[in-house]
This record gives sequence, structure tokens and C-alpha cells, in this order.
Amino acid sequence: MSRNIQVSRLDRQAVEDQEVEIVERKGVGHPDSISDGLAESVSRALSQLYLDRVGKVLHYNTDETQLVAGRAAPAFGGGEVIEPIYVLVVGRATKSYDGQQLPVDSTALAAARDYLEETIPELEYGTDIVVDVRLGEGSGDLQDVFGEETQEVPMANDTSFGVGHAPLTETETIVYEAERALNTTYYADHPELGPDVKLMGKREGDRIDITVAAAMVDAYVEDLDDYDDAVADVREFVTDLAEDHTDREVHVHVNTADDYEEGSIYLTVTGTSAEQGDDGSVGRGNRANGLITPNRPMSMEATSGKNPVNHIGKIYNLLSTSIAESVTEEVDGIRDLQVRLLSQIGRPIDEPHVADAQIVTAEGVDIVDIEEEVTAIIDRELADVSEITRKVIEGDVTTF
Amino acid sequence: MSRNIQVSRLDRQAVEDQEVEIVERKGVGHPDSISDGLAESVSRALSQLYLDRVGKVLHYNTDETQLVAGRAAPAFGGGEVIEPIYVLVVGRATKSYDGQQLPVDSTALAAARDYLEETIPELEYGTDIVVDVRLGEGSGDLQDVFGEETQEVPMANDTSFGVGHAPLTETETIVYEAERALNTTYYADHPELGPDVKLMGKREGDRIDITVAAAMVDAYVEDLDDYDDAVADVREFVTDLAEDHTDREVHVHVNTADDYEEGSIYLTVTGTSAEQGDDGSVGRGNRANGLITPNRPMSMEATSGKNPVNHIGKIYNLLSTSIAESVTEEVDGIRDLQVRLLSQIGRPIDEPHVADAQIVTAEGVDIVDIEEEVTAIIDRELADVSEITRKVIEGDVTTF
Amino acid sequence: MSRNIQVSRLDRQAVEDQEVEIVERKGVGHPDSISDGLAESVSRALSQLYLDRVGKVLHYNTDETQLVAGRAAPAFGGGEVIEPIYVLVVGRATKSYDGQQLPVDSTALAAARDYLEETIPELEYGTDIVVDVRLGEGSGDLQDVFGEETQEVPMANDTSFGVGHAPLTETETIVYEAERALNTTYYADHPELGPDVKLMGKREGDRIDITVAAAMVDAYVEDLDDYDDAVADVREFVTDLAEDHTDREVHVHVNTADDYEEGSIYLTVTGTSAEQGDDGSVGRGNRANGLITPNRPMSMEATSGKNPVNHIGKIYNLLSTSIAESVTEEVDGIRDLQVRLLSQIGRPIDEPHVADAQIVTAEGVDIVDIEEEVTAIIDRELADVSEITRKVIEGDVTTF
Amino acid sequence: MSRNIQVSRLDRQAVEDQEVEIVERKGVGHPDSISDGLAESVSRALSQLYLDRVGKVLHYNTDETQLVAGRAAPAFGGGEVIEPIYVLVVGRATKSYDGQQLPVDSTALAAARDYLEETIPELEYGTDIVVDVRLGEGSGDLQDVFGEETQEVPMANDTSFGVGHAPLTETETIVYEAERALNTTYYADHPELGPDVKLMGKREGDRIDITVAAAMVDAYVEDLDDYDDAVADVREFVTDLAEDHTDREVHVHVNTADDYEEGSIYLTVTGTSAEQGDDGSVGRGNRANGLITPNRPMSMEATSGKNPVNHIGKIYNLLSTSIAESVTEEVDGIRDLQVRLLSQIGRPIDEPHVADAQIVTAEGVDIVDIEEEVTAIIDRELADVSEITRKVIEGDVTTF
Repeated sequence: MSRNIQVSRLDRQAVEDQEVEIVERKGVGHPDSISDGLAESVSRALSQLYLDRVGKVLHYNTDETQLVAGRAAPAFGGGEVIEPIYVLVVGRATKSYDGQQLPVDSTALAAARDYLEETIPELEYGTDIVVDVRLGEGSGDLQDVFGEETQEVPMANDTSFGVGHAPLTETETIVYEAERALNTTYYADHPELGPDVKLMGKREGDRIDITVAAAMVDAYVEDLDDYDDAVADVREFVTDLAEDHTDREVHVHVNTADDYEEGSIYLTVTGTSAEQGDDGSVGRGNRANGLITPNRPMSMEATSGKNPVNHIGKIYNLLSTSIAESVTEEVDGIRDLQVRLLSQIGRPIDEPHVADAQIVTAEGVDIVDIEEEVTAIIDRELADVSEITRKVIEGDVTTF
Repeated sequence: MSRNIQVSRLDRQAVEDQEVEIVERKGVGHPDSISDGLAESVSRALSQLYLDRVGKVLHYNTDETQLVAGRAAPAFGGGEVIEPIYVLVVGRATKSYDGQQLPVDSTALAAARDYLEETIPELEYGTDIVVDVRLGEGSGDLQDVFGEETQEVPMANDTSFGVGHAPLTETETIVYEAERALNTTYYADHPELGPDVKLMGKREGDRIDITVAAAMVDAYVEDLDDYDDAVADVREFVTDLAEDHTDREVHVHVNTADDYEEGSIYLTVTGTSAEQGDDGSVGRGNRANGLITPNRPMSMEATSGKNPVNHIGKIYNLLSTSIAESVTEEVDGIRDLQVRLLSQIGRPIDEPHVADAQIVTAEGVDIVDIEEEVTAIIDRELADVSEITRKVIEGDVTTF
Repeated sequence: MSRNIQVSRLDRQAVEDQEVEIVERKGVGHPDSISDGLAESVSRALSQLYLDRVGKVLHYNTDETQLVAGRAAPAFGGGEVIEPIYVLVVGRATKSYDGQQLPVDSTALAAARDYLEETIPELEYGTDIVVDVRLGEGSGDLQDVFGEETQEVPMANDTSFGVGHAPLTETETIVYEAERALNTTYYADHPELGPDVKLMGKREGDRIDITVAAAMVDAYVEDLDDYDDAVADVREFVTDLAEDHTDREVHVHVNTADDYEEGSIYLTVTGTSAEQGDDGSVGRGNRANGLITPNRPMSMEATSGKNPVNHIGKIYNLLSTSIAESVTEEVDGIRDLQVRLLSQIGRPIDEPHVADAQIVTAEGVDIVDIEEEVTAIIDRELADVSEITRKVIEGDVTTF
Repeated sequence: MSRNIQVSRLDRQAVEDQEVEIVERKGVGHPDSISDGLAESVSRALSQLYLDRVGKVLHYNTDETQLVAGRAAPAFGGGEVIEPIYVLVVGRATKSYDGQQLPVDSTALAAARDYLEETIPELEYGTDIVVDVRLGEGSGDLQDVFGEETQEVPMANDTSFGVGHAPLTETETIVYEAERALNTTYYADHPELGPDVKLMGKREGDRIDITVAAAMVDAYVEDLDDYDDAVADVREFVTDLAEDHTDREVHVHVNTADDYEEGSIYLTVTGTSAEQGDDGSVGRGNRANGLITPNRPMSMEATSGKNPVNHIGKIYNLLSTSIAESVTEEVDGIRDLQVRLLSQIGRPIDEPHVADAQIVTAEGVDIVDIEEEVTAIIDRELADVSEITRKVIEGDVTTF
């Protein structure tokens, strides 16, 4: 076997056992997440366009989308946007191939519109938010990077680094699942909840505090009592959800900055703070696994918007997470696992310079007992690296 | 009577009798007309917003909209826009009043979207065309210019000049009516005709040549034969229409720059040349009466987008045209009439520095026979100047 | 002789003899003139770039520059710009030729910077004014339009119309010369005078009123007395200049909208009203001969920024003016002359569809006496049409 | 003592002792660093403006600057920029205070220009790079946050997290110092080296590999031999510098992606890859201590461009680093130290929810021996928190 796979003991406590743990997740309606989501949806659309038109993904990156906040005047029963949010989709794309012009700008805008309409339904495209696009031509070496015919694995074009871990701690699980549930099942019955939900989890010993900042949508909130009910509903929902995932003591705090006396509450027209002064950028929020976890090593690389065929940072961040999840699913006795992949310029991406799994084992389990099994799984997943690319293009994997 | 109204003989032949006459009209889908139309629809929306919210029209001007052309790849049966058209709505507007914030930017964008969807239906807002807005705050002296309570006539704030004429010559009538008919009744049965229709009329003696440049919409044109039929249909329609308005010899030429051998035809995706390289600006196309008439004096002032309450150039251009039409309708024996209004800073706008009607009378009619009647009509219309403002706000009068 | 040249009597009085005459000129620092000047200086720079790099002028147009006004806080002794002026240079340009990339965007920006620094020295490039550029690729048929080798006359690509006249009336002369003198010799000794000088001349019978709006630069104005002196100096200068050109009664009014009691004066930081709320566009101000003359036929075509090799409207507007000037210089007995050139698509531009000179002769001169001479001059100038192109590229002729 | 300061053992090996270590630093000319640097220089200029005009720092944030790459055509001896780099400075700022207008936009642009001219001297402001600005008004609660009179410590307005560590490992030291030296002392004698230098350090056991990507400036490189010499010089310089900091085996690799046969080398016109396809954003590159260190916990917060008076994330990231440095300087026996500060909404920022120092002691040193001393230093630095703000405003501390 030619791959350089190393399995070793992680020389620290499992995060679950550390005294203090901090976890954060910015919901899909947070300005940074909107930027991530736009970048990634534009990326998927371009990949699909290239596959449809020329049978392979061409050179592009759309990972620099910038959101400039607007201004709004929310009001019980329904206010209005005063100054629209402005988004500039920035990146590089191949605009013609083999004499054929490719509608990359129009495709990008259509993807942005569709994504926004689905994700932030209260935001009217073109009037509440203006999206413009600046996609420069790439550096000219229009590499054919991925196609139906191409069976070859691409070469790494950069020295880059990906890191993943599993399993999630209780706090991580609660923060992640709460945001997902709030924005799907809870929202289905509670239109007053906007998609800009930000959760911060802090665990000290056996006490978990979940702080939620939840943008309420004014059209569905009649008055302050109504608002107070909406806040209480979120608190109850998140508390119940959290208690399904832990036996620790849980405290949930929602919109703690509110001051009813002063009339200062988190009320919005569109359900996102981007309507009022909060700008957003790609790669500034959640990491590839959907969380911000200062207790763990993280990659600074923005994952959203990067080309899923040849951007090694994107692929390795997603793959290391996938490997970590597979390993902990298939192998017993792992309490904490951290996978790092380091690329080597000029070598196929399924042969990283080093693939490094560090493990905190459960009591009674020794690393040598499971080393071989872990190595085999890593080897298998590396061999199947192009599966990550395929999943990204088809939208089967999230990047933020 | 205090108004300085002068009626005199126009010391030239009636335009109808001149040897050479040139007339042009850019249809509503021409890039310059799109700019005019956007500027004026945004202006109407802001007037309406101010009336709704504060009971009077506040300071604004939106007469500087700039359109940057896109790129498209038309194809028989339906092509696509490659790079969207970009529009920057530029101007000044009052953004707050008496502590109340006014959604001028969002209102402007909504007006732009509605106008485009109605006027150029094949152009998808937000993907085929991106509209952004830069409305600065005005100079601070937020004058309350027009309201329900205010019965006073505003003061002229500039030395400006308006000019109108009537009746239209045969060539003018044909050029104007043909564009209107093509974009309404004809279009209803001919979806292949785009709104970007440009007509140039040239009369030499008793021969009238009408040159039409008509953008065809590719989705409704199957092949070159189909295209050729579409061109022939326009030619026939315009010829018939022209012959209803004149007994002179009429020749109609449609899309004369086409070269079928070279495959060079006027085919578009969206029905406007703005999709492919033709930029547009406010005030560069049709004058306030809808025509470009080098045989007659014209004002350089852009009319579209100007504030209809206090912009003296806009008001006087529309009013002089209205006066000329009223006079020729009500008074017999006028072969050609030209009305000029010159403002005087600091005086009420219903008291121009000079209102000057120059007339070419019909044979047998002397200027003194009609002078009094003409003066009375001008006086009446000046007294009723605020009617122009009202009509503009309600969209009952066109500005280009 | 193959050219269709017609000489006829102009069936109206000479403008000099008409009862009322109106003339306007916007100085180089007026927002519309800034736009014109930027468009034309960018145009010249691109022509020169193409000649230097590929030996001929390639396809481009830069006639759609839009200026968005800034905000400023002027103060005696020196205030400051609060929000910069924003300029978007819009147009089309050929960006590569024969495999060679051409720095059109950078060239355009450098030309804009140099023009602004020379014309409006108080305006700091990059901080008081931001210039951005959107030059799309042309329609693809990259025509080689003009070069050292090419001796052929280009074909007209549009039906277009140019009009010129000569000699200038007294009022026209005064308005034109006063602006030129104020911005050159007068400015040399009076740094307090900004380049945004707008002159309106109105003649009624033998009385000429010249209204001047002159932006004063605050850094050179200590207080209100100083300002009042500056206004008086301009008045005196323009009065003297006017009296050199006419024996009529002259009245000069400077900054008539000032209200010293209210502290409302025309004081600026940079010498242009673009710093405070006045937007500007190409082609909205002076016609190709530097004046706005509602008493005469005018072309709506923007001249500034158009390609001087093949844009027929630009060439014919400049050429008709040049012809009119030559004829009146060389031929005696002409009181008023109007030259119109009408192009014909597909024919060489030196063979217009019609070249039409209409003349008001001096007393005692009959049109037949001079017809032949006039025709010969027109023929000569048409034959030499490419001289206009050359002059434009070298900056020897102004366009606004 | 009321501060919640905790000192504990760090339950892992010192990073210096770990088997694999990865460190990265993006030089000041890297597109992400340009964005950081612009954001921070604009921030400093606004702080200074507010202090000068109103005696205290008002509400603002400028941490969302977006850089859109240009296009260039480098050539030995000197090429040219084809399409300028575009920068949009994004953020919020207070534009008027107590009736006084504040020139925030002009100040931001001037700061950007000065920063670029100093940092990337080959890049001509206004032609090679266009900087525009979109600073919205803040959310209205214009808090007076910091002033000469104000002696009070501000309240934390968010739950945020800062982390710092010390001392630097050998690899960290080398990566950091090499970039600093290349861009200062080395550059002084080697104008061919552009400021876009990116260093990646990888240590496996006792072998350190330093990979340098160094943009060369074409005007100072005559030919390929010259280029090859320039690369060799960098390699030698970095090798020497590294060997001053470590006894481990060092290998330095410069511009490893070059392919001389194919003529593919890292040659630029301006010394930054932003000229050719590489976009940049704030907060995507170096952390507050100037490094990217996946072996250590990092904060995702962008530090550059944030308001140094009240942005708790910025303050805590800089303060935790400062504390870590002070502690390791003053206390013996610390092999690795990690400081975390967690804010608590509504409490003074000098009283964090928890200040947590985790230590790997040197052999023979016990945590209890130094705990008291460490606590005292942390307490002292927290008490002096406003010193960080002052240093940021005066430019005495770097943020990236």
C-alpha cells in the first residue's frame, strides 16, 4: 500500500472530557452564512453548467462573495426594507471554451436568486437585495479538470491542509442540531422565526449554556407580548432538543440583549440582520463541518465557493470530516478522533503527503487494537476521493 | 393680465413644406429609451411615495440612470444572455422627513423591476439585467415642493427653456404612430418583435422613406425563412400605417443592415440591443414629445426622471407641447406652431419671463385674426400649470 | 463630381436678426462637461494606444460616462469633501488583437486621472473622486478601422445626421469666449474661480443679458467680503469681454441665486458643483461646437467619446461645423450659414447622402453669386474627411 | 480580586515537541493581507478622525473589505497591468455627530491610498488599482465609545472569544521572521522581490521544510537567468535566517511551481498576485498574531478593521496574545502557554467571564510553583486593557 497513513494516540483529553468547551454555529440566514451559501450555490451551478455544456468542470472559484448590509425599519405587523442589501459575487470563471461562449454570469445570478428565495423567503430578490457579479477570467491555463471521460485523479496544485473530527460532543451536537431543527421543522410551524439564528454553546464541566440570537420576522409578530411568546417558544424548543442529547444541566438563553423597557428587541423585516448593518463574507463563519470549535484544530481555508474538482483545501476539509465520521461509525472504542490531510504539490490528491489520524480511545481500548482497521478505512476513502467532488456538485454535502 | 405672452409670425416655411425633413423615434426597448423609461418610472414612484407618506412631493431627481450593455448569444428557437445588462439608477432623493425614514432605494428598485417586466417582458429581472441604485441625499434644503394643502405655484429655481410644437407633420406622425402601433397592437399578434424598434423618417419633397431597425426575439423565430417573414410583416404593417397618414410616396425599409449570406441579422434573445453592446443614457434619445426633430428647435434638457413639481425644464417642455396641441386643436388656420417658454428665476412658474408662440398660418389666415384666441389659450394653460405635474405623477403624460 | 451637394437659401432671418436669442455654455468644470471631457480624453487615449500597439484604431466607444455627485462641506479658507464623486466610465473596447492583450482599462483610468488633474486641479484623484471603468468587449466584429497603411475612407455604418453653422452671433461669441477666458487667462490670476462656470446668454432685440454661475473655491476666499469681491471681479471681466464683441447693451449677472443674508452663496471646495449633488452625463451639455443654441437645429448625438474613425455622427457634427467655418471665412456676403450632412449606410463617409448648405446672404448678395464657390469648399472638405479623425485623435479639435 | 482567572496544566505536549507542525504566514502583499491591511489602516484613520474632530471614537467597523483581482501582462524588463485590481472597502461608520459632518469616505480613501503606496509601491493608485467605498450608517445607536474624558472601561457587547499563545516555536519564529525580513531588510537591496511572499513551514520531527512563494517584479528582472538568481538569493537568505533560529535540519524551497521549460514562472508587474486572478478578503489569512497555526486553537474572528474600542473579539485576540507574551517573558519554566479570554455580555471588558491560562511547564517545574505569578500578570494586563485600544489606534500593534 502506497499511501502514507499514520495512526497515533492524540495526546490530550477528549474534548468531551475537557473542563471548558465552546461551540458556535451561524444559521443559514446569518450574513456570513448567506455569503457562504451564495458562494457554494453559485459554485454548484457553474459545475453543472460546465458538465452540461462541455462534459467537464472547467476552472473557476467563487469563494469571495461580499455582502454589504442594508437598512430596514421593522415594525410589529410588518415594516419595510429602506436600503437594499448589496451582494457582490466575486471570483474567477472560464467564460468560453472551444469557441463556445458560456453564460457564467447569468448562471451565477440565477443560482443566487434561487438560493436566496429558498433560504430567506422574506427577502425579495432585486428590491430588498441587489446581487451583482464580477467573475474575472481565470489565469488562462484553462485546465479541464473533471469530466465523465476523465477517470484520472487530479494533481494537488497547492500545499494545503484539511482537518476533520468525530464524533461530535454533546455540546456540538446540540448547537448543530438546534440550528437545523429551528430552520426546518420549527420554522414550518413558526413563520415568525427568521433564518438568521446564531447559537453559541458553552460547557463548563457538566453545565451547558446555549445562547441563541434569533431574528424575528415582524410581519408575524403583532406586539411585544407576541414577541415575548415567540422568544419563549424558541427557548422551550431548544431546551427540549438539548435534553434529548445530554443528561447534563442545560440552560438556554434567547435574545439576551433585548431590553423591553427601551423597546430594543431583535425584530427584523426579512429575518436576517443583513438588513440592518451586519455585513458578511465567505469563509468567516462556520467551518466545513458546520461548526466553529475553538477547542479543536481548524483550517482557515474557506470551503464554500471553491472548485470541488481541484481545490485541494476544499476537498481535504470535506474528506477529513467524512473519514472521521466513517471511522467512528465503523470502529468501536473511539472517544475522540482527529484526521488531518496534508497535500503535496504535484502528487495525485488521493496520495496526500500525510494522512494522519489521532485518536483518544475509550477506556480499555488500545490504539494497536484498532490501528489496522482505521488505516483500512482511511485508505478506502482516499481511494474514493472523487466521490467528494461528486457529492459537492450534486449538493449532497454541505460546506458551512 | 400679467403674463408676458407674445404671438408672432414664424419667419420660415412650415416644416411640412420644407424640402427635406428628418424625424427619428427610438422605441421603448432602445437602450436610451430604457434609461428614460426607468428614470421616469422611478420618478413617478418616488413622487407617489412622498405623497403617500408625507402628503407632498419632496426634493429628488432621478434623471441620470446609466445602462451598461450586456452580452448575449441569440440563436434560432432561443438563445441566452451571457453577461447581464447593468443599470445604475443615479440621482438625489430625500431619505428621511420629520424623523421618518423613507424607503427610496427599495421603492426605486421596485419601480424599475415593474417597468422592465412590463416593457421588456423577455428580459428576466435580476439575472438578465442587474439594477443597482445610487441616490445621494439632496443638498439639504429639503424643500416641501408640492402637496395637497399647498395651493401655491412654485417658484422657478433656474433659468430654463421649454419648446413645443404642433401639429405633427405627416412624417412625424408616421414615425411616432408606427412605433406605438408596433409595440402594442402589432406586438400582440407578433411576439417575435422586440420592443427595441428604431424608426428614422426622411422626407425629400413628396417622397417619404421610413427606415426601421427592429430587434427580433429568437425564441419565436425558427429559422432564416421565419426571420425573413417577420421582417416582411413589419414592412407591410408600417407601409399600411404610413399610407393611412399620407398621400405621398412611401418606402419602408426594415433591417437594412442585414446580410443573410454572412448570417448577419438583427436577432436578439430579449428584444433589445442593450443585451449586446449598446449602452444607454437618459436624455440622449427622444425629446419630451417622443420625437427627435432636427428641423425644429429642441431643448437639450432631459425630461425623464426630473422632479415634476419644481424642475422648470421638465415642466416647460411638457407644457409648451401641451399648449401647442391645444392651440392647434382649438384654433383654425394654423399650419405650423412653435411655443417657447422661458423661465425667470424667483418668479412663479405660471409667470414665465416670456411665453412666445410663433405661427405659420394657413393660406388666407392672418396672424392678427387669431392672436387674441391663441393668447387666451396660452394664458389658460399657464394658469393651470400644476395640471402638468399632476399628469406626470399619475403617468398620464409621456416624457420620451 | 459625384458628391450630392446642395446650396439653397435658408428661409428664415439670420439668428443675429431674430428678436429673441438664447445661448448657453457649460464650462469645463460643469458635471456634464466633466463627463464629456472624460469620455473624450479616454477616447483619445484609446485611439493612441491602438495606433501605438497595432498601427490602427480598433473598435471602441466611450461615450456613456456617468458621474455621480459627491458631498462636500465648503468653508471660508478651505473646507473638505465628505463623500467622493463617483465616475463610471462606460463603453466598449477591443481588449485583445492578434493574440496581444491591450491594457484598455488601465489606459482609460490613466487618461481620466490626467484629464481631471489638468482640468479640475483642486479635485484630488482617488480620494475626492473615484473613477471606475466598465468597458465591455465590442460586438465581436473587430473591424480594423483606421491605420497608417489604410488609405481608404470608411463606410458609414449608420444613418446619421450632423449639423453645423457659422458665423457665431455676437451673443454666441460672448458666451463661448467668456467661458474660455475665465477658465484660462482669468483663472491664471484668480485661483478662487473654479472651472464650473455656466453662462447663459439671452438677447432680446439689442439688449444682451449674460447670466454667469461661477463656483468659487473656498481655499482662496477668506470671508464674505472676499467672496463679494470675487463675484464683482467676474462681473467686470465678463462685461469688458462682452463689450469687445458687441455694441449692444450688455448686462452681466453673476451668481444671482446668492443670498448673503441667509449665507447661501456659491462656494465650493473643488470648484465644481459635482462635489455637492449635481450629477453629470455625456452628451447632455454643449453640442459639438461648444454651445447650446435652441434657435438653431441641433443634433442629439453625443459627440464626446465616440470613435473618431467610424462614428458617423461624431464625424459629421464636427465636419459640418468645420465646413461652415471655412465657407464663411473664405466667401464674402454670408450672414448666416447652416450645413447639414446626412449619411447613407454602406457608402463611403466622404459621399454623404446629401450635403446641404442653407444660407442667409448679406444684403445685396444673391445665392447664385456664391453657390459655386460654396460647393467647391464643401467638396474639398468632404474629400479631406479623414483630417477630422486625425485632429480628434491629436486633440486639435474640441467636442463639447 | 474580582477577576475570574484560572491557571491550569495544558493536557497535551508542547507544540515544539509534537511530531508534526504546520505554520503559515501570508506576506503583506498577499491579496488577503492587502485586504487586512487596508481594513486596519482605514480603521486607524477613522479612529484618528473621530478623536480629532469630536474627542472620542465613534461607532464604526471596516472589517469587510473585498479585493477583486485584476489582470496583468508581466514581461522581463517590465510589463503592464491590463485590468486594474478593484477594492471595495465595506463597513459601517458614523457620518455625522452633533450636527457636524464627518468626512469618513474621503478619509477612508486617503488611508487606503497611503497604505497601498507604502506597502505595494509598484502598484499605481487609481490606475492599477481602483478603490471604492461603501460605508453604511451604523445601526443608529451612535455610542460614544472612547474618549479623552471617558475613563470608564466599555462593556462587552457580544459573547466572544480570544486566544493567544507564547512562546513561538522555532518553526513559527522562522516563518514569521523570514517574511518580515524579506519585506524589509532584504527588499531594501532587492527591489525585484515583491511584497506578496507566502511562507509555509512544515516540521516533521527534527526536519523543517520552508516553502516560499515569492512574487518577483518584472521591471527588475532582465531575463530567466536573472530570475533564477533572484530565486536563489531568496533561498539562501531564508536558509541563513532559519539556521539562526534552529539547530534542526532546514530545507528551503522557493517558487516550486515554476517550470522554466514551459516558461511558467512567478513573475509579476506589481509584486502581488492580486494583479492576476487572486482575490482577497479580510480575515481569511493570518490570525491576529501574524500566523496561521493549525496545531493550536484559533479564533475565527477577523481582527483587522474592527473598532478597537468596543469590539470585544479584536481586543481579546490582541490582549490574549499580549498576555501570553508577557507571562513567558517574565516567568521562567514555561514551555508552552495558551491564554483564552471569554467575554460576558454586559460586563466591563476588563472582567471577562473567564481568563484561562493553560501551561505546559518545563521539566522540573510544577504549575503550582508559578500559578500565583501568572495570575498576577494576567490581572495586571486585564486592568490595563485600554492600553490595547490605544496601541491599535497608534499603529503600535499589528493585527495580521
